[in-house]
Amino acid sequence: MGKIVIARPGINETEREMIEKAAAEGGYTVDYIESSDVSAECLLEAEIIYGEGKAALKAVKESDHLKWLCASFAGVDAFCRPGVFKNEDAILTNSAGAYGVSLSEHSIMLAIMMMRRTPYFYDSMKNRTWKLPIPQDSIKDSVVALFGTGDTGTCLAKRLKGFEPAKIIGINRSGREAGPDFDETYDFTRLAEVFPQTDLLIMSLPATKDTYHIINEETLALLPSNAYIVNVGRGNTIDGEALAAALNAGKLQGAALDVMETEPLPQESPLWDAKNILLTPHVAGNLTVPYTKRRNTEMFCEDLVHYIKGEPMEHLVDRDLGY
Amino acid sequence: MGKIVIARPGINETEREMIEKAAAEGGYTVDYIESSDVSAECLLEAEIIYGEGKAALKAVKESDHLKWLCASFAGVDAFCRPGVFKNEDAILTNSAGAYGVSLSEHSIMLAIMMMRRTPYFYDSMKNRTWKLPIPQDSIKDSVVALFGTGDTGTCLAKRLKGFEPAKIIGINRSGREAGPDFDETYDFTRLAEVFPQTDLLIMSLPATKDTYHIINEETLALLPSNAYIVNVGRGNTIDGEALAAALNAGKLQGAALDVMETEPLPQESPLWDAKNILLTPHVAGNLTVPYTKRRNTEMFCEDLVHYIKGEPMEHLVDRDLGY
Repeated sequence: MGKIVIARPGINETEREMIEKAAAEGGYTVDYIESSDVSAECLLEAEIIYGEGKAALKAVKESDHLKWLCASFAGVDAFCRPGVFKNEDAILTNSAGAYGVSLSEHSIMLAIMMMRRTPYFYDSMKNRTWKLPIPQDSIKDSVVALFGTGDTGTCLAKRLKGFEPAKIIGINRSGREAGPDFDETYDFTRLAEVFPQTDLLIMSLPATKDTYHIINEETLALLPSNAYIVNVGRGNTIDGEALAAALNAGKLQGAALDVMETEPLPQESPLWDAKNILLTPHVAGNLTVPYTKRRNTEMFCEDLVHYIKGEPMEHLVDRDLGY
Repeated sequence: MGKIVIARPGINETEREMIEKAAAEGGYTVDYIESSDVSAECLLEAEIIYGEGKAALKAVKESDHLKWLCASFAGVDAFCRPGVFKNEDAILTNSAGAYGVSLSEHSIMLAIMMMRRTPYFYDSMKNRTWKLPIPQDSIKDSVVALFGTGDTGTCLAKRLKGFEPAKIIGINRSGREAGPDFDETYDFTRLAEVFPQTDLLIMSLPATKDTYHIINEETLALLPSNAYIVNVGRGNTIDGEALAAALNAGKLQGAALDVMETEPLPQESPLWDAKNILLTPHVAGNLTVPYTKRRNTEMFCEDLVHYIKGEPMEHLVDRDLGY
């Protein structure tokens, strides 16, 4: 009898029922452990693990039995490096499709917060002071570039459309068409065409060799000084030192980061104090949002059914691409 | 030769050209004054005033010559009371239609900020501390009720649609259908049907005798304890004491107010310290947002052409209704 270990926080009763119903189809037993519990006995006996954290990593590195890891998160780049899986034939899937809703809501909030100078007003109201209006910007009539057109970029375009931007431009690796809510799509080699016309750049890129520090001194210089950047993808897609320098020199209007190259952000990082920066501690996509929790579990169960039937997995990661 | 006085802040060169082109059609001269300049000589000679502030109010109260006030703002309730206009036959128009874009962007930002606990994360990051995720909510799958279905409510519904709420309910005085982005519409007498199913209530009501303290102890009790309220309409539509009490008693999940009954909010108001409150100082709709500025001027010019030709005015205020 095969073993499934669930090492994911916040599984509720409904999700448990969904998992056990799917598991029963293949005659699997299901154990639930804390995602930090590396000493759980069942961990190295599991054929399938759904989850995250130190427990999942330990099983990947040490288990001969692991045949499938379903990562309950999106950024699986660390699991794509050669030699990470002890069982090299193990399948890797991820849960990128569960986070687009949450990441896109958070991104739009961050963008409007910057455009409307909300931190300034928030700080003044905390001190019971009432400040007069200062210049504000708007998504209306702005050119929005979505750097990354996967689930998050697609959710973003769908949500941003109603705000009546001047246009929505997608940027992805191949330049493939990104869907009905995008007005134009460009590939990574054409940033010099997109960036100079961009008012708001929202990044939801995976971490790959192509995206490492793709926002750097040179590409930042292509953006107009009134542009805003939001990053909810992976932290190492931005050179943080270059971003802080550009903000402090007034070469950008603002930046909002939910992800950074090293997290938690080191105390000595120049990003903490950069001009017009807005930081949130990697909470744009997380497993407390009801839809994300449910969708995450659904996606695992969908692939569990495929796994049992020997069908292709829907959320398979391409380890060469890293996502 | 008739006189037009422009007493509106932030008129730029493009807007000046628009105004002067329209004014020339009727042979009017145009003077520009500060909106606080009550001593401007031209003020009491003007046939038409476009603007706001003490200057506009003085002309209304003291001028025999004023035939038309185009208020550059939306909430004209104070100008609708009997005896305010010295020339009782003067026309009153307002600029409500210019603010929906700005008010709706701000409202959606405030709603997501509350749902995602952004003030908590913002405060922690200000102190360079990295807090772990706490439960967050989402517009996705939430029931959103829009209290007020004018320009702001319409802009809100259009923008919220892409966030995939469970449904969007409109509430207005007559219960008239509110447009294609609303799933249902109710009149003011049916709050007991709408409120118990509401997750997010966004208010953009005018100040009238029907809307005064329409959110009070009794109507607050109809909302579920996980509901959020946003108000960007008029401050006196909410009984602030009752709202603070409901928040502090945990009968509501959160409230975000851009408008209050008395502004600036008095130091002794219980709203400053209410639990899960988010305050901004009446900046949701203001004349620094580029679209709002331009649209505001356009609307005045449209009606100026109508005025000159003796046609009905598009943005006429119904003084009995107060908006």
